[in-house]
Amino acid sequence: MPGDFSVTPYDVEGQVDYGRLEERFGIQPIDNRLMERIKKDAGELHYMIRRKIFFANRDMNWLLDEYEKGNRFYIYTGIAPSGGMTIAHLPSFVMAQWLQERFDAEVLIEIPDEEKFLAKRDPKLTLEKVHELAYADALNIMALGFDTKKTRLFLNTEYAGKLYKHAVRVAKYITYSITKDAYGFTNETNVGTLFYPSMQAVPAFIKSVEAGRNIPCVIPLGVDQDVHFRVARNAIEKMGYYKPAIMHAKFMPGLKGNPKMSSSDPDNTIYLDDAPEVVAKKVNKAITGQQATAELQKKYGGDPEKCAVCQYNKFLFEPDDNKLEKIFKGERDGTLLAGDHKVDLAKKINRFLEEHRKKKEHLKDKLDGVMLK
Amino acid sequence: MPGDFSVTPYDVEGQVDYGRLEERFGIQPIDNRLMERIKKDAGELHYMIRRKIFFANRDMNWLLDEYEKGNRFYIYTGIAPSGGMTIAHLPSFVMAQWLQERFDAEVLIEIPDEEKFLAKRDPKLTLEKVHELAYADALNIMALGFDTKKTRLFLNTEYAGKLYKHAVRVAKYITYSITKDAYGFTNETNVGTLFYPSMQAVPAFIKSVEAGRNIPCVIPLGVDQDVHFRVARNAIEKMGYYKPAIMHAKFMPGLKGNPKMSSSDPDNTIYLDDAPEVVAKKVNKAITGQQATAELQKKYGGDPEKCAVCQYNKFLFEPDDNKLEKIFKGERDGTLLAGDHKVDLAKKINRFLEEHRKKKEHLKDKLDGVMLK
Repeated sequence: MPGDFSVTPYDVEGQVDYGRLEERFGIQPIDNRLMERIKKDAGELHYMIRRKIFFANRDMNWLLDEYEKGNRFYIYTGIAPSGGMTIAHLPSFVMAQWLQERFDAEVLIEIPDEEKFLAKRDPKLTLEKVHELAYADALNIMALGFDTKKTRLFLNTEYAGKLYKHAVRVAKYITYSITKDAYGFTNETNVGTLFYPSMQAVPAFIKSVEAGRNIPCVIPLGVDQDVHFRVARNAIEKMGYYKPAIMHAKFMPGLKGNPKMSSSDPDNTIYLDDAPEVVAKKVNKAITGQQATAELQKKYGGDPEKCAVCQYNKFLFEPDDNKLEKIFKGERDGTLLAGDHKVDLAKKINRFLEEHRKKKEHLKDKLDGVMLK
Repeated sequence: MPGDFSVTPYDVEGQVDYGRLEERFGIQPIDNRLMERIKKDAGELHYMIRRKIFFANRDMNWLLDEYEKGNRFYIYTGIAPSGGMTIAHLPSFVMAQWLQERFDAEVLIEIPDEEKFLAKRDPKLTLEKVHELAYADALNIMALGFDTKKTRLFLNTEYAGKLYKHAVRVAKYITYSITKDAYGFTNETNVGTLFYPSMQAVPAFIKSVEAGRNIPCVIPLGVDQDVHFRVARNAIEKMGYYKPAIMHAKFMPGLKGNPKMSSSDPDNTIYLDDAPEVVAKKVNKAITGQQATAELQKKYGGDPEKCAVCQYNKFLFEPDDNKLEKIFKGERDGTLLAGDHKVDLAKKINRFLEEHRKKKEHLKDKLDGVMLK
């Protein structure tokens, strides 16, 4: 169907209309009033919220009500390790780290190492291989600036001694029928994949279990992950815990303009461990919103919304709104040429990755201290 | 359908025809040749095998092939805690303990505390309540004479740190479709119940994982549990481990003659913690195969197969074959009167339970040392 699109944790297809997605998922936009409120409580507004990269939410007003009453929240997010961490994985973690800093909050990060193992048919993707990827992801995440005292990460298979017991309590409320409707699971779906979302639900209330009283939780995530919590929030509420608040991020496009960058498609993706020359080469091949030739571009201009280079600046690499506006304007009015545009972005990405590698080097021996087992 | 019966882990209905059950489940009888072989390797034959209480098997000849080649096996069995342990739970454990003693084997005992929690609709059956029942079961089991050095027990929720990772590997081979066919699960079955059998499969190969080489395993169980391993044995084989051998026990009838004693029906059941007068009272009300009056009984005789009192002697309380034959004969030819018959059994049960209580008292502080977490 022209103009149609689909968003699941397993696949994103078509040009995503985020307004229509809000309706489909029953989520609320982060409107100006909520932005003002976040700004007031946080002392500043993160550019990802201002730019509507985090565009929607569940219960953020409730979360801030609680915060303003003195009920501190914690932050929960995660990453399923598959083919190495990419720049498209960063927004949830950048947001989580910012929330931690502004609200002095604890952070729990789930690495569901069983998820991809269960979902993929690739026999080379053993649990051991996923385990290795998971620890690489953990180091990448911590290097984003999380407070080592207030941040804990875990692999589901390593932390199951704590999680499984409570996942069972969630699972009692979730029938096959519910998962079928929510995820499109079929008779041929394996029972591990059917159960796994119950494991993913636990960190959203585990701090309340531990404290013996309800503690609010907020989850920044890619909007494709919303379904997990559409299902889990009902169960969590029936169990007597607070439903977690959620902040939804848009997808970073792939280098070739596909709607969501995927870690399993190397040509479309910039990995956090790509070497500088690889980054330069990949960015040089990226799609832009520009015309076919420099002459046409100068004459007719381009479309920043269709330009991966503009979008990467917007999502991650140009936090200064004025500078970003200059880039977008140059793209639109044709004064910014594709070559310069790409060289500039590649430099920014490589600067970030170089810093990131240094931070990883510094943290690599400290990882054990933040992993829950 | 007259003469029809059904056997699942969740329900047993009708008069079970064990010959037909062998066909349905694809299991083999424990025939004279296998009995001789067990007797030779064990140095004696347990009365439960001789009496065909353990009546069928999978791969026992393979297990003894391996044993005779010097490949020692371990034993795995378990109990799902629900309403307290009854005498009908004993045969699997009595057999496991005997195998341990005769073959100097390690024993693993699973207490799947999540199973009944997931399956029952009773809101009072919380995980905490099941946990309490599970520890009571653990003490009852150890009091049956297991070697504390070579026996380890665990609750699934407490040992999930070890089990979940491998359960996920099993689960990858088990689709919803497979569990639907095997267990009769429906769209309304919760995802915890769909996943749980994968947890139950793990102890059947965990020793091989730990050792880094294949170690044979045998599972004595009630025949209603066979389905778990019909499903799991395929997955275990695909993972490259030995499929476990299995020994299948018949059901102990309820006091009122229903085909399987159930811990959730107190009037039909003798619990291991029933007081002596309660046992006497319950046995006094038990069904016998006898005629309505002493006079008729003397004249026509009774049927030991329909007599719960005869059956309890056969299953557990009269290990001496000659004495058992005397009881059966007395029942058949009418010389044994119901009153004497019952008083005699109640005495035997109470003697056993008194000893059992003493052993529990002696062991209660040592339980922590045998629990895996």
